[in-house]
Parts: sequence; C-alpha cells; structure tokens
Amino acid sequence: MRHLSTRRLGAILALSVATLPLAAHADDDADRTAIRDLWGTYAEARVAGDADTWLALWDDGGMQMPPGTPALGVDVLRARVPEAFAAGGVNTMRIDPQEIEISGDWAYARGVYDSDRLMDGAEVTISGKFLTILRRQDDGSWRIYRDIFNGND
Amino acid sequence: MRHLSTRRLGAILALSVATLPLAAHADDDADRTAIRDLWGTYAEARVAGDADTWLALWDDGGMQMPPGTPALGVDVLRARVPEAFAAGGVNTMRIDPQEIEISGDWAYARGVYDSDRLMDGAEVTISGKFLTILRRQDDGSWRIYRDIFNGND
Repeated sequence: MRHLSTRRLGAILALSVATLPLAAHADDDADRTAIRDLWGTYAEARVAGDADTWLALWDDGGMQMPPGTPALGVDVLRARVPEAFAAGGVNTMRIDPQEIEISGDWAYARGVYDSDRLMDGAEVTISGKFLTILRRQDDGSWRIYRDIFNGND
Repeated sequence: MRHLSTRRLGAILALSVATLPLAAHADDDADRTAIRDLWGTYAEARVAGDADTWLALWDDGGMQMPPGTPALGVDVLRARVPEAFAAGGVNTMRIDPQEIEISGDWAYARGVYDSDRLMDGAEVTISGKFLTILRRQDDGSWRIYRDIFNGND
C-alpha cells in the first residue's frame, strides 16, 4: 500500500465527508418523529384554545401565510392569537404531514388537514393542504419557520 | 506543539468539515440567480400561454397545490395545462421571490405575486403569496417540486 502523507490523508478524509449526501443524517427518523409530534401539538393546542403552547411552536423569525391576508410575522401572531383562540369554535383539527424532508437544519412538511368548526352556529368541516418550512433550533428541537395553506373547496 | 497522530488529525479535519453550515455552498449566489430566473420564465410562459416552457420548469415528481382543489401531480398538470393556457386571459404576471434559501439539493422560495386577468370580460388584479420547494436536478438546474399559493383578498 502506497504511503499517504498526513496532509494528503487529511484532504481525502475531508473530501469524503464533504461529499456525503447532505440529507443523510443518522437521526432523520428522530427528526421526522419530532416534526410529526409538532403537528399533533399544533392541532391539540388549537382545539384547546391554548395560545401559549401553539405560539411556542413558532421560530422567533416565523411567518404564517394564511389565505385572505398578506403574510403575518410571528409578532403579529403573538399579538392576535390569544384573543382569536379565546373565541373558540374549532371543535376538531386533524393534520396529516404526508411528507417530511430533512436537509441539515431545515425541513419541509407537506400534508393535508381537516377541521370541524362552528360558523354562524352550524358546524362545518373544512379541508385543505399545507406546506411548511421548519427550522432546527440550537437545542435540536424544530419550530415552524414558514407556513402556508389553502382550502380544497 | 503537541504531536498529532495521522488518525487524530484526520478525525479533527473530518469533524471540522462536518460542522460547516450545510447551506454554505460557494455557488449559493448562482443557485439564487437560477431560481430567480426560473420565476421570470414561469411568469413569461404563463402570459404567453407557452405550456411546454412552463411544464418544463417542473420536477418529474412535482406537485402543485392551488386553492380550491386537492394537490395536483405533474401528470395532471401535463394533461390539463395546454388547454387551460390556450384559453388565455392572463394579461400580466409578476412574481417576486423575496426569500430563497438553499440547503444541498433542496431550496425553498417564498414571495408574492400579482396578475392582471380577464374575468367575465373585465380585467381584475389578483395578488397573493407563495411558498415553493425546488429540487436540484442531475444537470445542476433547479425545478419546482412543491408549489402552494393563496390570495391576499
């Protein structure tokens, strides 16, 4: 076997690591589970009207992009959500993240949702789809960074 | 200076590379320019009614998530778009990708759009926002993998 200098060996090792697929994290499964759990918490908190728990799911630079309004920064959410949640009217919410892709400290989730809500005294079911960018925090947890959704009807 | 064994030096070099920010690609600027150009092509092709050019912007596994329908796979787009584009009625389209983030072979773009369209013989302006996942192709180009949008009004 040919002798490799320390410098050459170091360069080869560095190159090997640099060309590993960026998404090939050993802990992708744990990340996917954490992100699935986040959606469970999101839905439960929304139905319970628990604004604090729901707001804690958002990155400090987060942005929500709901239909019918320009994008809302997390500061706007913090100001408006407690009163909006207190009004109630969301009887059920199911969120199914059908796809979760991790790349380093970023992830996206895509899926569908439905929700039974009181509107003018009658319960209606809405259904739609969403696409969300999540960002890994310094403590390893995931939070919502960009979130957009729209209805199917 | 303490002597470092070849193995130890290799481990340190590998660790240094592994902890580089994953998004710190030297060619991020070129990627951002390519993605910005993609949106220019998207808007121009839509106004021109050029279905072939527009469809070529989509990944073979792409999915569009417009309001008012469940998600549409790229096969559905290929089947429906030529006739839909031939009907015309989109007089202008401006797409502004206000944010582009690259992570390996994935990217997301977030932004706003507006478009002047003929509806029942009258021109109306619609405006909204979008979030898009793009995927790097084997030839280095970017294509649309997931795309969702909704209106501001």
